[in-house]
Amino acid sequence: MTDDFVLRQDSDGVAWLTLNRPQQRNALSRAMIAALRAELAGLATDTSVKAVVLAGAGPGFCSGHDLKEIQANPDPAFYAALFEDCAALMLAVQALPQPVIARVHGIATAAGCQLVATCDLAVASTEAKFATPGVHIGLFCSTPMVALSRTVPRKRALEMLMLGEAIDAETALAYGLINRAVAPDRLDDAIAEVTGKLTSKSPLTLKIGKEAFYRQDELSTADAYAYTAAVMARNLATRDAAEGIEAFIAKRAPVWCGA
Amino acid sequence: MTDDFVLRQDSDGVAWLTLNRPQQRNALSRAMIAALRAELAGLATDTSVKAVVLAGAGPGFCSGHDLKEIQANPDPAFYAALFEDCAALMLAVQALPQPVIARVHGIATAAGCQLVATCDLAVASTEAKFATPGVHIGLFCSTPMVALSRTVPRKRALEMLMLGEAIDAETALAYGLINRAVAPDRLDDAIAEVTGKLTSKSPLTLKIGKEAFYRQDELSTADAYAYTAAVMARNLATRDAAEGIEAFIAKRAPVWCGA
Amino acid sequence: MTDDFVLRQDSDGVAWLTLNRPQQRNALSRAMIAALRAELAGLATDTSVKAVVLAGAGPGFCSGHDLKEIQANPDPAFYAALFEDCAALMLAVQALPQPVIARVHGIATAAGCQLVATCDLAVASTEAKFATPGVHIGLFCSTPMVALSRTVPRKRALEMLMLGEAIDAETALAYGLINRAVAPDRLDDAIAEVTGKLTSKSPLTLKIGKEAFYRQDELSTADAYAYTAAVMARNLATRDAAEGIEAFIAKRAPVWCGA
Repeated sequence: MTDDFVLRQDSDGVAWLTLNRPQQRNALSRAMIAALRAELAGLATDTSVKAVVLAGAGPGFCSGHDLKEIQANPDPAFYAALFEDCAALMLAVQALPQPVIARVHGIATAAGCQLVATCDLAVASTEAKFATPGVHIGLFCSTPMVALSRTVPRKRALEMLMLGEAIDAETALAYGLINRAVAPDRLDDAIAEVTGKLTSKSPLTLKIGKEAFYRQDELSTADAYAYTAAVMARNLATRDAAEGIEAFIAKRAPVWCGA
Repeated sequence: MTDDFVLRQDSDGVAWLTLNRPQQRNALSRAMIAALRAELAGLATDTSVKAVVLAGAGPGFCSGHDLKEIQANPDPAFYAALFEDCAALMLAVQALPQPVIARVHGIATAAGCQLVATCDLAVASTEAKFATPGVHIGLFCSTPMVALSRTVPRKRALEMLMLGEAIDAETALAYGLINRAVAPDRLDDAIAEVTGKLTSKSPLTLKIGKEAFYRQDELSTADAYAYTAAVMARNLATRDAAEGIEAFIAKRAPVWCGA
Repeated sequence: MTDDFVLRQDSDGVAWLTLNRPQQRNALSRAMIAALRAELAGLATDTSVKAVVLAGAGPGFCSGHDLKEIQANPDPAFYAALFEDCAALMLAVQALPQPVIARVHGIATAAGCQLVATCDLAVASTEAKFATPGVHIGLFCSTPMVALSRTVPRKRALEMLMLGEAIDAETALAYGLINRAVAPDRLDDAIAEVTGKLTSKSPLTLKIGKEAFYRQDELSTADAYAYTAAVMARNLATRDAAEGIEAFIAKRAPVWCGA
């Protein structure tokens, strides 16, 4: 047992970050946000880590912001800092060089649903539920909508945001919010399958590709091509690309050097 | 019976706007567009209305522009004014503080399909049909494509636009063009279910969220977070958010004051 | 038999471009890219052609870049020119006045998958496979992601890019990457059905609409409406629109003059 807000455990090149306030359904209090950001800052330069799994302790994945903390701090400066820090957390997930996979075993609501939408990939148990229910309590999920509306089709996002109701994992899969929905007892196998594939790749290649993905997504098509053509030329000049192509042509497994 | 182009009927905080040229399949003549814009302008400041349903009288929902009116006015200035007014109508639907739900019981074609795509939510009968068939008559659905291409995936939109063929409600649901497809005799129950949920929310919260949704959607992710973080802080400072959070923690129903 | 990299065959207003390096799975070598660009440049001003089908000879549709050519030219200037030329090819497909339909009968990988995503429409055999597998060889599919991420939902695109695994035609259809998945022996009928519909339309109308589609897609909603309202007014002033509306009202088939 530990008092840490976020637990980190590494295994086979995969870092597991586990939100660890199970009684509070891993609510994103300011301390929890700070702990997560600190872990991500450490991972960004940790070359031993090739993929990151984001999980939650206890019955839920993440219930969003900590309403009791908000209620106890009726202060505009507190509010502003809270949402700015939370947005910085989401941007840090996408800026991380390594792929981040959400492991969603229970509820993922409000900023918790935003975390799922923000992760590069998401694998969920069929017992998971997803919602942006802020509208029920007079606080529209306006920051979660940034990630949600870039991940699911517009009318799906508007329905989730305006009605506030939960969807199950099969629906989340159909909407494109997650990549897999599996039986609860299959969840860790499904995560292992994804991380096993990711860790077999060149971390440098994944880093180049992930950065390019989010950047090109905000450019016009012509600008995106000018940018990614340069990325490809740079990628091709790496030793891992030379090795990968040579291995492919020789029909052998590549050996990455990460440069 | 009435000569009005658009009928308005209010009930339980919901305003129904019914396009009322059933013989013309509720074509968007200039008078119809003007009548709709006038109704929306009135609704924008009507605090008694918490949700808007857009419906059509007679066998169809809306067949798009009035081709006979267009043919009778072969004038570049008329054309320009027509499409500018129609675009202003669509922008007014999304600028309205209240959620707008399309009630689609029959055909929704060309600018009629655009109206469905433009509404925040859409509930359709399984007898409804959707098409952007302008290509059949030499007039590509270029204004409808603005709403359509922001609602359904790219190749679905291109197929609808280039082939001009109708899709049924189940297909429209799969494409994300609508939120529900129900049997014709279930349509009004399905609408009532959605409006019942919407009217139980704080109108101020819905207004904040709807405005934020369309604005953040056109920003880069970083800019969208800077903007929505400020929206959240402002939302949290409202009395309805304080009430909503207090009620949630106390496990009682909230009482909204709309401020 | 021929040494041409790209074969062109015209029939009933449809130009078929067939990638013709079956032994190399129609890899996009520099010569292949140049040949395709030359064909597209010719088609752009060929008013006898109303639709274009892009097909591949031999067992595959297109396997992406020519890795042996890349390996034989370890030169930054070669890399830069290769990806710039390939990006120019993709932009030329979308800039072509005529609709372009991908006919995908086998594998479409890396830049081959990008070609499918880039075409306006895509019809595939159920034997087709789609992948962006560059991550396997240390060369992330960063230029393919431009087309892919504008065609399929974000988490589907990231999964294809980060894991590099192939999806089948049914999955590609569900993702929105293609418009039809049919049995292999039905592929040419399905293509003929689509081209038959396209060639019955006014080529001028299709040209106006296709150009407007990709341009409005990169504008804000308000700017997109200002732009497309002007496009509609211009389209309505064409003789084909006058003919199309007259024919529709008179319930007869239109006769297009292409002006």
